Amino acid sequence: MSAIRHALTIKREDDFAQWYQEVISAADMAEESGVRGCMVIKPWGYGIWERMQRLLDDRIKAAGVQNAYFPLFIPLGNFVREAAHVEGFAKEMAVVTHHRLIADGKGGLIPDPEAKLEEPLVVRPTSETIIGDAMSRWVQSWRDLPLLLNQWANVVRWEMRTRMFLRTSEFLWQEGHTAHESREDAKRETMRALEMYRDFAEQQLALPVIAGEKPENERFPGAVETWSIEAMMQDGKALQAGTSHYLGTSFADAANIRFQDREGGQQLAHTTSWGVSTRMIGGVIMTHGDDDGLRVPPAIAPFQVVILPMLRENEGDQALLDYCDALRASIAAQSALDEKIRVLLDSRPGKAAAKRWDWVRKGAPVIIEVGPRDMDGETVSLLRRDALWGADGKPAFQTPSRDAVGAAIGGLLEDIQQGLLTEATDRREANIVRDVESFEALAAYFSEDRKFPGWVEVQWSRPTGEALDKVVERLKALKLTFRNVPLDAAPANGKCVFTGESAVERIYVARSY
Amino acid sequence: MSAIRHALTIKREDDFAQWYQEVISAADMAEESGVRGCMVIKPWGYGIWERMQRLLDDRIKAAGVQNAYFPLFIPLGNFVREAAHVEGFAKEMAVVTHHRLIADGKGGLIPDPEAKLEEPLVVRPTSETIIGDAMSRWVQSWRDLPLLLNQWANVVRWEMRTRMFLRTSEFLWQEGHTAHESREDAKRETMRALEMYRDFAEQQLALPVIAGEKPENERFPGAVETWSIEAMMQDGKALQAGTSHYLGTSFADAANIRFQDREGGQQLAHTTSWGVSTRMIGGVIMTHGDDDGLRVPPAIAPFQVVILPMLRENEGDQALLDYCDALRASIAAQSALDEKIRVLLDSRPGKAAAKRWDWVRKGAPVIIEVGPRDMDGETVSLLRRDALWGADGKPAFQTPSRDAVGAAIGGLLEDIQQGLLTEATDRREANIVRDVESFEALAAYFSEDRKFPGWVEVQWSRPTGEALDKVVERLKALKLTFRNVPLDAAPANGKCVFTGESAVERIYVARSY
Repeated sequence: MSAIRHALTIKREDDFAQWYQEVISAADMAEESGVRGCMVIKPWGYGIWERMQRLLDDRIKAAGVQNAYFPLFIPLGNFVREAAHVEGFAKEMAVVTHHRLIADGKGGLIPDPEAKLEEPLVVRPTSETIIGDAMSRWVQSWRDLPLLLNQWANVVRWEMRTRMFLRTSEFLWQEGHTAHESREDAKRETMRALEMYRDFAEQQLALPVIAGEKPENERFPGAVETWSIEAMMQDGKALQAGTSHYLGTSFADAANIRFQDREGGQQLAHTTSWGVSTRMIGGVIMTHGDDDGLRVPPAIAPFQVVILPMLRENEGDQALLDYCDALRASIAAQSALDEKIRVLLDSRPGKAAAKRWDWVRKGAPVIIEVGPRDMDGETVSLLRRDALWGADGKPAFQTPSRDAVGAAIGGLLEDIQQGLLTEATDRREANIVRDVESFEALAAYFSEDRKFPGWVEVQWSRPTGEALDKVVERLKALKLTFRNVPLDAAPANGKCVFTGESAVERIYVARSY
Repeated sequence: MSAIRHALTIKREDDFAQWYQEVISAADMAEESGVRGCMVIKPWGYGIWERMQRLLDDRIKAAGVQNAYFPLFIPLGNFVREAAHVEGFAKEMAVVTHHRLIADGKGGLIPDPEAKLEEPLVVRPTSETIIGDAMSRWVQSWRDLPLLLNQWANVVRWEMRTRMFLRTSEFLWQEGHTAHESREDAKRETMRALEMYRDFAEQQLALPVIAGEKPENERFPGAVETWSIEAMMQDGKALQAGTSHYLGTSFADAANIRFQDREGGQQLAHTTSWGVSTRMIGGVIMTHGDDDGLRVPPAIAPFQVVILPMLRENEGDQALLDYCDALRASIAAQSALDEKIRVLLDSRPGKAAAKRWDWVRKGAPVIIEVGPRDMDGETVSLLRRDALWGADGKPAFQTPSRDAVGAAIGGLLEDIQQGLLTEATDRREANIVRDVESFEALAAYFSEDRKFPGWVEVQWSRPTGEALDKVVERLKALKLTFRNVPLDAAPANGKCVFTGESAVERIYVARSY
């Protein structure tokens, strides 16, 4: 097989972390902003987020959840009320202390000492406490329940070490917040949101995920149960891609969300919260990117098909543009994945070949080049981003007739979507090790000279409190973390690899982002 | 004519400001949050905003503008660079000074003195400076221009006196930011955005607006020209509903947005910015609300049709629900205003009549009630929100056949949309006074015992600097402001009512929000 010259300078296998940064830059998705810990999301990255938002928002609305908007600022006092929450969260947060600037007399500005806030405000790291306040006003009777709310917002968690999309001080997300009459109803919502995320990740992001419960040490601060979806990246590490929390009644107690029940008594509501963020974009990059850049699953690609006319800057260009525009219109009239196909005719000046590599790096699923020869033969030159290279080491162009493209393009995009999911699922399954029966074997798997270790599924006795802390410390020494107790695991039938006791369930152990 | 009992307790003519607050509360659109100056936007209010976003975003994208996302926080230094901008903006802003909280030893939390930021961060009041930084990185050559960006975001301007939707410390908006090769191209974009807002306001919000240039004293800080759309509220006051700024090269100079021009020289880019916010929702309320609550124009109604089954909590309910659901499906299959009709079957428990008044207050354009008698006769009872009361002082129900509703509903919604625009336009035209030829006559119009004075169009000589300041002071004494110099005004042909000099153009004077 011929040597292939890739569109990036760094290969995944050589330096996965550097490769990740190069994809983001080469695909023109985002960049550092110069503001500590904050990134600029550029149009191609933001376009992918808009697609995710649209698709997930449809699912949220279909479940009867209503969007609303709550304040960016949270009074300090709100944080103090829920003891476990404040322990977990009240650390690295942006604090607003002044509401005015004045000249410092040296050409600069300083916060005006006369305009100091009586109570500092925290820039929301999450909105349980402020939405809980609203719920306490809105919920009087069992008839007001369930109360199903969602917010699309920016949140801020001051981070010392940041990585674009994966961990930034400010990020974008949705946060669902619901209140219910009973534990059962709240649990049902917790699991509904989890399943929504699982299906969204798999069907639309082509991201195979394991849905399961986080162990006690990984719970959201103040939650009774935290559930997650976990995806395996190409370097074998786990990425927590979404969480759903059953919060019990402690947040309701702190915010005073009480209702008159069906028997006339007063009860505390049971609440949940659930969220996914722009972090998912990092997961898409590290799952579907290759040594030529990003490959965007068609369902979330801002453009699914890009048409590149081979312009010569002469009088023949107009006929070529007309030919391409007719092609564009015929493709735009077709559907794929239950939506009209999003197609761009990129007629900016510049060489088609140079533009081709831009779109390869960005990961447009299908690139169609059209030159005078194609036009004469009523064909097009079509490149699948998921099958870029031929056996000869050259781009694997197909040359269907123009008429055939319109009819075939919907099926082609659906095939690419499915292919990305299958590829990622196969890779994950090949990199999960089951039936590891001792801590030593676990340690050996990860301490071997293995470049990209995967995940290990072990049986455990679900220790709690200090016993769990000790296990977590032992894992930490190996740079390992618990991921989750999968919903669909086989029952336990052996001994806990940590305590030697009878195991009660299975849990994933992995390196993680 | 019979006395009509309205669905609100306060009438517009009795206390317009209180009526406004009651509509927001009665329509369940928003409420005070308890956080200073910040509101909670409830699902019905947020649903209207989502509709506005979707429709305006389509227009923004159609113009070739790309969405992106920039940091919430702006380093103080950015503000200092553009002198006029800092003068205008660097006053009431939220300032982040710390990035961590610690226990105060008394059960509370305080900002950690050890975690004080070296350079305080401002929560963005607008993003010219931070987006300018990005543009300076992205623009190298004339080939990179025009650069057309837009951001949907929250912004914060610390306000001492707030009013829901109209003036809140935090609000939601879109801000377009563009950079161009030449003054002409930037001016073209400024005017394109202005015209986009005008058409959006009129066609989709049914809000007739006057597009024109703001006088010098009302310019955006640092802008060369500021253009606005101005709408007349039912109390005659003006609401600035959107602005578009030509910024010249001063922001480019401050942020160093330079490019190599077609001749190889270095030039500063010409920039623009333009925005509309959740303030527009306040404009919709004060334009279309009546003494029964809100009337939402169909194009932006989260639900355009609400079906209310008259449930009896007996075995007959299921047949009624089936009948209503078939009706819902037949309506949902129809289109109006180029989209599928948004219809809700509200089958929550409760009396249909009580629910009817909820939806009247919320302003759903069409309410359809269905009882057993309707079902037997294969009819429905239909209420137009824009023609609520009959001559007999009772709700003016129509009783078309069920089959006729499906076919007619699209046209009905379009008729309501057009009717709201016509009503508001007629009212505005009836309340604009032209040909007022002296300052005394102007003052007399506003000092008369006129409850809801409208706008006065005067001719003026466009004074600048101190001469303008003096005129502005004279207006201020009468609680008046300049609105704008309308694009479509007749040419000046008289004397300036302020200076007595030859007039050069016409300008609107009004009370305002």
